[in-house]
Amino acid sequence: MSAKYRIALDAMGGDHGLSVIVPAALEALKQYNDISLILVGDEQKIQAALAEHNSRDNQLISIRHASQVVGMDESPALALKKKKDSSMRVAIDLVKQADADAVVSAGNTGALMATSRFVLRMIPGIDRPALCTVMPSMNGQTHMLDLGANVDSSAEHLYQFALMGSELAKAIDDIDNPTVGLLNIGAEAIKGNEQVKAANALLAESPLNYIGYVEGDGIYLGGVDVIVCDGFVGNVALKASEGLAKMISEKLKASFTRNLLTKLLGLLSLPVLNRFRNEVDPRLYNGASLLGLQGIAVKSHGGADSLAFANAIGIARTEIIKKLPQRINAQIAELLDLRQAG
Amino acid sequence: MSAKYRIALDAMGGDHGLSVIVPAALEALKQYNDISLILVGDEQKIQAALAEHNSRDNQLISIRHASQVVGMDESPALALKKKKDSSMRVAIDLVKQADADAVVSAGNTGALMATSRFVLRMIPGIDRPALCTVMPSMNGQTHMLDLGANVDSSAEHLYQFALMGSELAKAIDDIDNPTVGLLNIGAEAIKGNEQVKAANALLAESPLNYIGYVEGDGIYLGGVDVIVCDGFVGNVALKASEGLAKMISEKLKASFTRNLLTKLLGLLSLPVLNRFRNEVDPRLYNGASLLGLQGIAVKSHGGADSLAFANAIGIARTEIIKKLPQRINAQIAELLDLRQAG
Repeated sequence: MSAKYRIALDAMGGDHGLSVIVPAALEALKQYNDISLILVGDEQKIQAALAEHNSRDNQLISIRHASQVVGMDESPALALKKKKDSSMRVAIDLVKQADADAVVSAGNTGALMATSRFVLRMIPGIDRPALCTVMPSMNGQTHMLDLGANVDSSAEHLYQFALMGSELAKAIDDIDNPTVGLLNIGAEAIKGNEQVKAANALLAESPLNYIGYVEGDGIYLGGVDVIVCDGFVGNVALKASEGLAKMISEKLKASFTRNLLTKLLGLLSLPVLNRFRNEVDPRLYNGASLLGLQGIAVKSHGGADSLAFANAIGIARTEIIKKLPQRINAQIAELLDLRQAG
Repeated sequence: MSAKYRIALDAMGGDHGLSVIVPAALEALKQYNDISLILVGDEQKIQAALAEHNSRDNQLISIRHASQVVGMDESPALALKKKKDSSMRVAIDLVKQADADAVVSAGNTGALMATSRFVLRMIPGIDRPALCTVMPSMNGQTHMLDLGANVDSSAEHLYQFALMGSELAKAIDDIDNPTVGLLNIGAEAIKGNEQVKAANALLAESPLNYIGYVEGDGIYLGGVDVIVCDGFVGNVALKASEGLAKMISEKLKASFTRNLLTKLLGLLSLPVLNRFRNEVDPRLYNGASLLGLQGIAVKSHGGADSLAFANAIGIARTEIIKKLPQRINAQIAELLDLRQAG
């Protein structure tokens, strides 16, 4: 195993476990020739799953046994306390021990947050991790955070999200000075809640390229590189979008399968419809970064299929290459110095 | 003017003012043969706009002069204080004086809320008005509130929203016992913020048909008649949905206009695509009810076109027919008695 970037996978996590993780691992190895993968979980089951894909001898895959699994609905605190040999915990431990450069899990979000925070520790100056993902927009993409790791975020937390999101956009998208917007319910300063108003004041005085308030539709209309919000709000916006996209896709399909004529048209239009579908395919946006940790952890959607999970592996790889935690660390240190001096 | 239901229109409100309101009024009169409309605003301008549509002598339209207009970005408090002869205020006054049965405005949301509350007064037992609208879902529709009238809603407020939304669904959709869900970021009781957890406890003990937590995608997946949330969250979810729907529509259009072949396919598929578009046409969902007032007030989207604004007039008409404020009033009184007795 001489690959440059070593990524640990929580092989038992998510709604589908090994039946998705193993093909996803193989898919990722096809896409990236500079990674190796450590599958963490029940060794026998992993061996069996690899055998099914004729991949027991793949030199780029190694196995690390873990005897426990964190349930999708388990309490994060209990998982942290009682599941010290879970696939999730052991995969995170590998990052801590520098045996892996990043961890990817489709498991219980709360447990992943709590365990990563406990094992990997926060970057000094950051209070809590934030979940950040890429959303497609009319003319590009937007990084949005927090997506559910934090509720009742204070102004200071929103400010920290902005710092981390900006650094992520710089690193991942090679943007010099990413634009940052604060999610609110109106463009006027009189609207919004107290935390948002206070965060607006903090951001206006910051060295970030802060462009002010953005409303919900701004997520998709484009022109903002980073959008910051409380985790409750961000999670609802993300999930509502997933639901709407699903509904639209179903209704479009139904329109084209109503009768013989529309079915024929649908068949003829298939390449066009597929191209359209690919452009807004949520699987190509799967993978949320846990920002603020002293290590790289990526959360995949629990229901992700192998293509989607492979995308999350790709995100972890990019963050390793770009040394994202180190960059955020340096940036935060600099800003804290600035603030103390100011 | 012997029509049964009299609706006052804030004729100067919204992004487009009279150029949308007058054709919308004519459209609504075509759709409903039991309404008459009072156009409130600058009499001369209204006369001119009616003349443009050869409708100066329409017996179902009357004009009520108002000399002021509330700006879209004006402070609600200032509008309430300084614009006592605005088209919005005079239209609301007509409802108070029982010269109209409902008011519809596409104007400044904050000003409409504040002025309606001041003029029409709240139903006893309801602290603040809530904005409620219908969202399309996979197999029907969902009433969602609050959509931005309230931020930092307490558990008690969320409970009141649930009561009002349930009564609205009963009245408008003729459902006996509407299902009510509480928007949250996870299905497990451990997630969410304090207000949501406390509201969950209140609702679980209420006589409502409460089904528990619903995540963001639940808005569109169907099966819930009423979804309750804080106004900040609801507004972001609504606006994000608008943005996503717009992006998807643009990308679908772009897919079909990429080259000659796809254009031809698009042309052939036009009836199918139009049928699809009609099913998710946001204009057919335009019009949010201000619930909790002792009178009927409907807020149209500021950017609504005439078809969309006519839809908001239709909502006002339905609420008049169903005597919605009286029903909410009776229901709240009964529940308050129950609570005091309990």
